[in-house]
Amino acid sequence: MMSELEARLAELGLEVPATSKPVAAYIPAVASRNLVYTSGQLPMVHGVLGITGKVGSEVDADTAKLLARTCVLNGLAAARTAIGSLDRITRVVKVVGFVASDPSFTGQPGVINGASELLGEIFGDAGAHARSAVGVAVLPLDSPVEIEFVFEFA
Amino acid sequence: MMSELEARLAELGLEVPATSKPVAAYIPAVASRNLVYTSGQLPMVHGVLGITGKVGSEVDADTAKLLARTCVLNGLAAARTAIGSLDRITRVVKVVGFVASDPSFTGQPGVINGASELLGEIFGDAGAHARSAVGVAVLPLDSPVEIEFVFEFA
Amino acid sequence: MMSELEARLAELGLEVPATSKPVAAYIPAVASRNLVYTSGQLPMVHGVLGITGKVGSEVDADTAKLLARTCVLNGLAAARTAIGSLDRITRVVKVVGFVASDPSFTGQPGVINGASELLGEIFGDAGAHARSAVGVAVLPLDSPVEIEFVFEFA
Repeated sequence: MMSELEARLAELGLEVPATSKPVAAYIPAVASRNLVYTSGQLPMVHGVLGITGKVGSEVDADTAKLLARTCVLNGLAAARTAIGSLDRITRVVKVVGFVASDPSFTGQPGVINGASELLGEIFGDAGAHARSAVGVAVLPLDSPVEIEFVFEFA
Repeated sequence: MMSELEARLAELGLEVPATSKPVAAYIPAVASRNLVYTSGQLPMVHGVLGITGKVGSEVDADTAKLLARTCVLNGLAAARTAIGSLDRITRVVKVVGFVASDPSFTGQPGVINGASELLGEIFGDAGAHARSAVGVAVLPLDSPVEIEFVFEFA
Repeated sequence: MMSELEARLAELGLEVPATSKPVAAYIPAVASRNLVYTSGQLPMVHGVLGITGKVGSEVDADTAKLLARTCVLNGLAAARTAIGSLDRITRVVKVVGFVASDPSFTGQPGVINGASELLGEIFGDAGAHARSAVGVAVLPLDSPVEIEFVFEFA
């Protein structure tokens, strides 16, 4: 059964996917007390990473920003595995966005805005979060973006 | 009105700045239960990033260490937005320091010591924290340093 | 006196080392409420980093995976400083693995699996954790791997 949050996402034309199997020996998310910590999310769609490469050289910033939106949907899917329903999320606490970056590319905030803005669309005021955005040398599977999330839930 | 902590900082010749506006669609800090999580802090002063570039090539380690101190002041300013008064901070829990690094530069701990030592000066024993220091390819706006903080508060 | 967990490790031929002195002005781990946050752990053995360099060029992935196992032992040693006995750990919450990577190396998950798999061997179901793995430009002391941990404890 679709949660209210998933119904709202459907109105935005968005869908929380089935959980993508982690690339390795860990789980999508862990809940401890009132927080759920997700694993780092790659912008996979149906288990496929369609776009790879470093932002600023092989991938442009606008494309990477769209990928950051996909990371949010995957992050919600991950959180759902730990807390059952996304309607239990009371706020977004923390976002850490890693952007695989050409050393000359300094627009990481704009890329991770793709995630921050979507969280605002989805959760409203409760979507306002603390955030770090950094440019790293390379990400798993040559992904342009990886984002981890901490959600508060009731 | 100045908090006791800010008065102590003034004695050290330091000032917690007005909060710098986040570079993007997020907020400076979020409090959840007894912890406040700050966004990644750049060493901006009055909204300006005076020094840019990679540590180990364009920026030397001593300069970067001073920038790390500025990140602490900005991190306290960020925390204040979420909890009102810095006197509520009971301890520093966690510091993650990202240093934009030439691949040959391996002195990240010395750079982030600028932050760790200042936290010790400010908070005494309560300033002792867990910490990670890593060298990344590039940071937002070509900042040499970015640091995020987790504080415990009452 | 050896904790039950350390006895189980001994059966696996593993030993939680004496805590390595942090490289800088911070402490190995901090406990706040029911979570203990460790500092980023390098794969030091008896205070020595035997292998250095970037994974994918100077260090191969299999070697780096073994180093990730060592980071787990050091992470447990760090946690022990904060909570006294490792038997208090009730689950592994979060692992963030930084792999100093040649920009062409995209196998970070396989490297950090060294840590994830060992946590599974040690803690069983309670070892299943959320995880991020990223490839960074360079790490302190030119370490190939650095891993930080969040453990839940009672």
